[in-house]
Amino acid sequence: MTEKIKVEKKVLTKNDRLAAAIRDRLGKRRILALNLVSSPGSGKTSLLEKTLGKMGSKLNMVLIAGDVQTENDAARLEKAGGKIVRPIITGGACHLDANMVTRVLEQLDLGETELVFIENVGNLVCPSGYDLGEDMKVVLISTTEGDDKPLKYPAMFRRSSVMIINKIDLLGYSNFDVDRVKENARKINPDLEIFETSCRTGDGLDEWYAWLTGAVRRKREKTPAV
Amino acid sequence: MTEKIKVEKKVLTKNDRLAAAIRDRLGKRRILALNLVSSPGSGKTSLLEKTLGKMGSKLNMVLIAGDVQTENDAARLEKAGGKIVRPIITGGACHLDANMVTRVLEQLDLGETELVFIENVGNLVCPSGYDLGEDMKVVLISTTEGDDKPLKYPAMFRRSSVMIINKIDLLGYSNFDVDRVKENARKINPDLEIFETSCRTGDGLDEWYAWLTGAVRRKREKTPAV
Repeated sequence: MTEKIKVEKKVLTKNDRLAAAIRDRLGKRRILALNLVSSPGSGKTSLLEKTLGKMGSKLNMVLIAGDVQTENDAARLEKAGGKIVRPIITGGACHLDANMVTRVLEQLDLGETELVFIENVGNLVCPSGYDLGEDMKVVLISTTEGDDKPLKYPAMFRRSSVMIINKIDLLGYSNFDVDRVKENARKINPDLEIFETSCRTGDGLDEWYAWLTGAVRRKREKTPAV
Repeated sequence: MTEKIKVEKKVLTKNDRLAAAIRDRLGKRRILALNLVSSPGSGKTSLLEKTLGKMGSKLNMVLIAGDVQTENDAARLEKAGGKIVRPIITGGACHLDANMVTRVLEQLDLGETELVFIENVGNLVCPSGYDLGEDMKVVLISTTEGDDKPLKYPAMFRRSSVMIINKIDLLGYSNFDVDRVKENARKINPDLEIFETSCRTGDGLDEWYAWLTGAVRRKREKTPAV
């Protein structure tokens, strides 16, 4: 097993190097990059569809939709009005890596882009270990899952800056407790920015849009690292 | 990357060898082994809680509950009446492997056992690649996820024998279509046995219990491989 660990370390180092190059390239252009993670079915694509509907005309967005096997998510995002949408099919791999994102970004003219929004593969474990050069990870959890998810998948919640509690319209159909999930999440990561949303009813989305607008603005006001 | 692939192959071969030994050991005792897989939050633990409540006095069951970081699931199963419940904490790993299961089984007296039910880590990708020596994989999908999950995570649905569509009480709160998910699943795996359940209302669980009883009986009637 020692050999395996050594090799994985080498692979990770290569990933970190590529992620740093992405961060540098986007940083120079003051483009905000977000890496959206969750388990399958929490509503990542729905959140992006809604976000496109409201913000698509206001923000110059590139959307990168990772998926194990299909281009379904990318197709949904194009239908929702995404102007620059790129699928990544991992062909079985359980997470995106910086190399896949690099290859997509190389084919794009990022001239006017303000936001690169990456939808990772649905998985609460593996994507936590792969830096994609993002500014922040946004983790989505839905009220139909257990409210102990932050304790069960701590790496993901520790490495995220934002947690969105989605499907709040379905509260009451399970034992999911919003206060408890927040408490569990803040035990792991006291600095988490938390939103409560329903992509079905629209509840809470305005706060999310306002945060996103602010985050893009703050990034544009930053002096790029030379 | 060649080196990585080679090493992973070696690790997988070791896993396959250990899985074969588990299969042999349980087969000789005519114990049915099931490997329960799903994304986080589909209701694996809830299904096992219900199954314990109904079948715990009728079937001699060993429950093995895999989790990345906590023993929450094992604690819930003990509370639900599980007599032999063993947690496996993977410490960050995204799936159980045959070595972890071997170590648990070695510590148990399987004399009266009829069923070993393994709850895998919540993940629709990685557990599909690791044989645990089970007779069958049971994949759980909930109606709050997308009905295209079988197409997006085909390996898991191809390698499963049973698909349980859970949370059918929440149908109508999303675009999830039961016929479509069945059609998608059967495109990947025409032989899937399919159940529709709600662990909250109890709908459909009797059919699942009947199938489970039958599967245990069929295994006990089998002449063990020598």
